[in-house]
Amino acid sequence: MVVNEEWFRGSLHELSREDCLELLAGKVVGRVCYVDDDGPVVIPVNYVVDQGGVLFRTSPQGLMAAHVRDGPVAFQVDEVDEVTESGWSVLLRGEAAFEQPKAAGWDNGPRPSPWAQGSRNLLVRITPRVITGRRLLPG
Amino acid sequence: MVVNEEWFRGSLHELSREDCLELLAGKVVGRVCYVDDDGPVVIPVNYVVDQGGVLFRTSPQGLMAAHVRDGPVAFQVDEVDEVTESGWSVLLRGEAAFEQPKAAGWDNGPRPSPWAQGSRNLLVRITPRVITGRRLLPG
Repeated sequence: MVVNEEWFRGSLHELSREDCLELLAGKVVGRVCYVDDDGPVVIPVNYVVDQGGVLFRTSPQGLMAAHVRDGPVAFQVDEVDEVTESGWSVLLRGEAAFEQPKAAGWDNGPRPSPWAQGSRNLLVRITPRVITGRRLLPG
Repeated sequence: MVVNEEWFRGSLHELSREDCLELLAGKVVGRVCYVDDDGPVVIPVNYVVDQGGVLFRTSPQGLMAAHVRDGPVAFQVDEVDEVTESGWSVLLRGEAAFEQPKAAGWDNGPRPSPWAQGSRNLLVRITPRVITGRRLLPG
């Protein structure tokens, strides 16, 4: 018997902005994507959601710090179930800025604590221009 | 008692190319990153490893197909343990090309079957120029 594999494929649905923000708030690790002279780079970081954007920490001497403000960036979170071949993903597209620790109100709200050793004392905020997401339901 | 949070942070280790390829081969979903006019975009896809690169399928009418060959791309896989705050990530940087179904040997080797419905009959190959990875051991 020949089985058409298409029968078993999942259906893809766009997520609302509200759903995207809720899923974003429920994760602790996402992926920062920036572009350097050789193209795009994708690096996982742990983060917190704050004022509609994401905050994470990195080393001020690192490549991320050197490039993340060069142009537009993306921040991505997802969840995948390999067994049911389903999942969701959320993508923020926007700009990154360094947060000034001494700015008024800086120490209000959640602040990320890096998982990795090293002096990751540079706080980076990604403010999204666009938030999109999709959910793949099991087939 | 004040506890220095730095004590509990994990240590970050570079992975060898061999380790990166082994980890890449053990996953089924990764993230394609390409750059369009508004900056970088990150999209999860299911994939297979073939001849040192990755193969995935997408819709020939989609945004990914329209942009993925415009310049350098990245492909990223990772695994995160939120409980122990550890994990690993692997990044391929290179170029994407459309695979010709009628090319000699096309149907040899593993071929990806899309999880999502729709005519995702365009086969894309990412050939890495550089493969890097890092493992974050628990603190």
